[in-house]
Parts: sequence; structure tokens; C-alpha cells
Amino acid sequence: MTGRREQGARLTLDDLTVGQRFISGSHVIDAAEIHDFARAYDPQPFHLDEAAARETLFGGLAASGWHTAAITMRLQVESGPPLAGGIIGAGGEISWPRPTRPGDVLRVESEVMEITPSRSRPDRGMIVLRSETKNQRDEVVQVLVARLVLPRRVG
Amino acid sequence: MTGRREQGARLTLDDLTVGQRFISGSHVIDAAEIHDFARAYDPQPFHLDEAAARETLFGGLAASGWHTAAITMRLQVESGPPLAGGIIGAGGEISWPRPTRPGDVLRVESEVMEITPSRSRPDRGMIVLRSETKNQRDEVVQVLVARLVLPRRVG
Repeated sequence: MTGRREQGARLTLDDLTVGQRFISGSHVIDAAEIHDFARAYDPQPFHLDEAAARETLFGGLAASGWHTAAITMRLQVESGPPLAGGIIGAGGEISWPRPTRPGDVLRVESEVMEITPSRSRPDRGMIVLRSETKNQRDEVVQVLVARLVLPRRVG
Repeated sequence: MTGRREQGARLTLDDLTVGQRFISGSHVIDAAEIHDFARAYDPQPFHLDEAAARETLFGGLAASGWHTAAITMRLQVESGPPLAGGIIGAGGEISWPRPTRPGDVLRVESEVMEITPSRSRPDRGMIVLRSETKNQRDEVVQVLVARLVLPRRVG
């Protein structure tokens, strides 16, 4: 994982613009990490065992999609958009166009798609952030279009 | 977590009907587990520290949404719908209407919403499964509407 972010200037809703982009640091995923996550949260053969995985739809060991999502979150928190108040998701759409494999080097490229101040609460709003998680061949392994809650600039 | 599922009769696409429902076993989440997941994948104050969390939007320690998603997956794999070939998601829509808190007892209630045989591949198809993750007060902490790949019955 990349290093911890400096607690510097963080972006409120009012500091963002539609089209603004962010690129995270990277993370190398290995088979041991894939196994560990799967044992804890997604204990299925294609995430646990290379030989068993070859006999499945995946054709080889693949990370749980939720593991890819979790690594994506870590990269975003540590080196993605420096959002005021943190990265707080209300939900979104997620897809995994292809599997994450052992040895993949993952990074996250994200773009602000929408900015919507709250009508009832002047201190906050919602943004839509589209994040592509890519491997070392620039192949997209996850797309997440997330709704995030964000504070507005005070004063 | 609930016990490992027996390897018994598993359901292919052709065995399912729209409206079919499944209820998983349950899992009790505690503060230590919330901290551990957050340290690994979502290191933000509202997931790491009760005192710091009180000062945030969450008003107290809350599990990462990705942790709720991961526990949901574990419950589904171990005691949810016994799908042939396993639970293989292509993607879906996820939302977290309220936080998961320490001490919550989570279970998953799911329903088959759509069943779509593949037109190009006679051996498989896609279902849409809507899963509500609920706590011990029957409050919904996560809704996941997932597209799952499923084999068809052979012969």
C-alpha cells in the first residue's frame, strides 16, 4: 500500500469541479493476500486455490470482487481525492469487467461527475465520483460510480 | 459466522424462480472486527476510534460499508442461496441506508428478481438477486442488487 496521506488542505464540495480527476498510488496484490481475504469474507474455490480455480469460470486464481473494492477504498483513502471529512459513500454502482489476478498492480483513476449541494442542509452536499481501478496493463478491473457525502466550505 | 454449507444439491439457473427467497444465517460484528477491517482497507477515524467517530457525520463508531459488503458475501456464500458454481457477481448497485454498528447482528434476506438465459452461451445465464442486509432490529444496513452468473442445468 502507499504511504499515509499528509493532513493538508482538504477539498470541500465548493472546491471541486465537474471533470476534476485524481490518480491514486498503487498496490501490488499477491496470492497470499487473495487467499487471506477470501478465507475471511468470500471462501469460494476460485479465490482460495489455484488448481481448483482452473476448473471454474475464472480459469485461475482471482481476487474476490469485494477484495478489489476494499483495496480500491484503501488506495482512495490514502492517496486518492483528499476530501474534507473523509470518503463517505452512500452507495453506488459497481462492476468487475475482468478478474484481479495475483501479481496485479492496481491503481485508481477517478473523476468528479456531478456536484449537488443539499437543498435542506446548507453545510453539505453529494458528489458522484466515477472510479476505475486498473491493473498494470491499463485494463479496468473495477468501475465504481459512487455517491459521496461531502461538507461545504464554512463561512 | 455461521457454519460451512454442506455440499448438497445446488441450484442452476433452471432451478430458480422469480420471487424465490433465501435467508442466511447471522453474524455478530464487534468493535475489534470493525477496527481490523478498517486498518486493512478503510483507515478513516469513524471506523477506527469511538471517540474520534463521535465528532463525525456518523456520531459514533461505524463499520466500513465495504466491511458490511464483505460480511454479507460471507453469509451468502456460507448460508445464502446454494447456487451451482458458486456466487459469481458481475456487478450491481449497492447502498448503505444506515451504518453498521458494534454489536449488530447481521443477516441477509435475498430475492430472485430476474432470470435471463444467455442467448450466445446455452450453458449459462444471469440472474438479478436483491439482497437486504438487516440488523437485529430489522433495519436495513445494506441493499445490494447484484447481477450473478449462473450455469444452466446440463442435459
